[in-house]
Amino acid sequence: MYEARIHRVLEALEQMGLEQMIVCDPDSIWYLTGYYVEPYERLLALYLQKNGNHKLFLNRLFPVPQCPYEQVWFSDTDHYLEILAQHVDGTRPIGIDKDWPARFLLPLMEYHPQCRCLLASDCVDNARACKDETERNLMRRASAINDMVMERTAAFIREGMTEREIADYIVAQYAAEGCDDVAFHPIVSFGAHGADPHHQPDQTRLKQGDCIVIDTGCRKDRYCSDMTRTFFCGQPDPKHAAIHDLVREANEIAEQLVRPGIPLCELDKAARDHIAAAGYGEYFTHRLGHFIGQKEHEKGDVSLSALDTAKPGMIFSIEPGVYLPGAFGVRVEDLVLVTEEGCEILNHVDKHWKSIG
Amino acid sequence: MYEARIHRVLEALEQMGLEQMIVCDPDSIWYLTGYYVEPYERLLALYLQKNGNHKLFLNRLFPVPQCPYEQVWFSDTDHYLEILAQHVDGTRPIGIDKDWPARFLLPLMEYHPQCRCLLASDCVDNARACKDETERNLMRRASAINDMVMERTAAFIREGMTEREIADYIVAQYAAEGCDDVAFHPIVSFGAHGADPHHQPDQTRLKQGDCIVIDTGCRKDRYCSDMTRTFFCGQPDPKHAAIHDLVREANEIAEQLVRPGIPLCELDKAARDHIAAAGYGEYFTHRLGHFIGQKEHEKGDVSLSALDTAKPGMIFSIEPGVYLPGAFGVRVEDLVLVTEEGCEILNHVDKHWKSIG
Repeated sequence: MYEARIHRVLEALEQMGLEQMIVCDPDSIWYLTGYYVEPYERLLALYLQKNGNHKLFLNRLFPVPQCPYEQVWFSDTDHYLEILAQHVDGTRPIGIDKDWPARFLLPLMEYHPQCRCLLASDCVDNARACKDETERNLMRRASAINDMVMERTAAFIREGMTEREIADYIVAQYAAEGCDDVAFHPIVSFGAHGADPHHQPDQTRLKQGDCIVIDTGCRKDRYCSDMTRTFFCGQPDPKHAAIHDLVREANEIAEQLVRPGIPLCELDKAARDHIAAAGYGEYFTHRLGHFIGQKEHEKGDVSLSALDTAKPGMIFSIEPGVYLPGAFGVRVEDLVLVTEEGCEILNHVDKHWKSIG
Repeated sequence: MYEARIHRVLEALEQMGLEQMIVCDPDSIWYLTGYYVEPYERLLALYLQKNGNHKLFLNRLFPVPQCPYEQVWFSDTDHYLEILAQHVDGTRPIGIDKDWPARFLLPLMEYHPQCRCLLASDCVDNARACKDETERNLMRRASAINDMVMERTAAFIREGMTEREIADYIVAQYAAEGCDDVAFHPIVSFGAHGADPHHQPDQTRLKQGDCIVIDTGCRKDRYCSDMTRTFFCGQPDPKHAAIHDLVREANEIAEQLVRPGIPLCELDKAARDHIAAAGYGEYFTHRLGHFIGQKEHEKGDVSLSALDTAKPGMIFSIEPGVYLPGAFGVRVEDLVLVTEEGCEILNHVDKHWKSIG
């Protein structure tokens, strides 16, 4: 599995005219080797070479990896960038991870002043964007937990509870289900708070007529889920209920279009057009979706300016929203997996608005 | 206040022969301007110039800052690195933040191929290492909360509780005290787990004779605390109690030496020598301390290889430990503030071993 992943990266590097690359993103290194360590401020690098002679550069404080590549160990007091520089081929251009910080990159460039350094993360990120079967199953499982927790949360909510109480409940449910962590801090927004797509839950109490936006996801065995549902406490303002229907339809319209080959910008446009046709276009203030995997947000987006087309294995969110400042907000979000024929929706919680609490 | 801080940075840049610098660390930008935003993967940059014509480069998605410097706004779809490159002086060397990722640095260097880029974060980090009066008070407050929570936690612990329960209790106490967050996930280690300095709390239950290592800190109004105390459940093995005394003495010996001008390596050596003289030198496996402020770990350390000397305003940890694999561990940690005459210890929880539970 790891060999197949590295092979895809090397092929992409070759298309860029590169025979070597330094990968530093710990998630990417895990993806390519099965070795995960959080290096904090220390150097961790996977040096990929066309000839297959890959090397891991490791601080002695890190655990020993189980992967078959050559390991180059160093201590905090060693000149580790000089060690790394001696291993790379300074006569050829080298691919650099987009996240590699200046404190490592500049000394390497000083050591090899003639060596051309090129951003090459796309070679890894594009491979990561198309999940293989192992990853698809992990993503399905994380979303299954998320479905379960969303249902439980909807049943738990009562008028008078605070946003924070509900967010804490969600976090506790993930822990009880054996998740690694949350994928991100749950967003729980009542009433006018719903108009801020990134509102952080506070001590506001739920009252009759409020919308309840819940945007949440867990991380289980490294892979993330992410879903939004919007409920109402008691009876909603009929106008708000109608906007909820509109946003749900926009979500469904976009999801029905997902299949290999469709430009991602067309998905955004289809959802946006539906909302705009009802007069709410200016209140849908963000892109339709983002890619997701080991991180809540990975490289790739579903927006009007997206250049990519859908490919089998891609997993991204479809999350249209309408936000009326000072009044109300609604968002309806699923994760979708592009399949060979169309798409698999990873979330199964009913999307129609309902009254709870 | 912000002007004084920027002035210190510009002076340090001048000593490096630099008249311009790009700062990207959001904590540093907050420190220098009062403006905090978490940019995630987006560009956020403070461009400092000797002539005082500082500029903030901001994505339109960020909130508008209150600071007096020129603001250059851009959108995700703009060529924002070209915009930035046009503002810097490509004919002179430029200081670069150590954390600036390759995805920003390489395009800038491509735009100005003749411009020399030099790591210059030390100019900011050395200023941040010496806390001004505002910061000292914030650090005192965060440590006062930490003292209170440590006392409460010691009173809360009972035989049979799990490490995780105690860690959760600590986190809840910080929330109740109005902290922003934890400074780091609390370390709670029973018995043999204490031998791993970075053990993560799990479902292990406390039993008679166990040591209880609690290493914890909160973040309040952006500034962090960090303290370790080691207790025993019931009566300890006399050998373990003696090692606790030894480690506490090492902590006290080092703290008594703290004053302006003392080489930081001498603090480490004094504590280490005391532990080694009793035959446990090889079991004190880490440096004596680290700097702290907005982050739990900031630039600067207290180790045998530290080159710096103590200066008024520096705040760092003094945390000797002894770790007996498979058996037991003890660490005793305070934060200390270097004053004009000596030092102020920010933690006040009794350091002698005691039986709890």
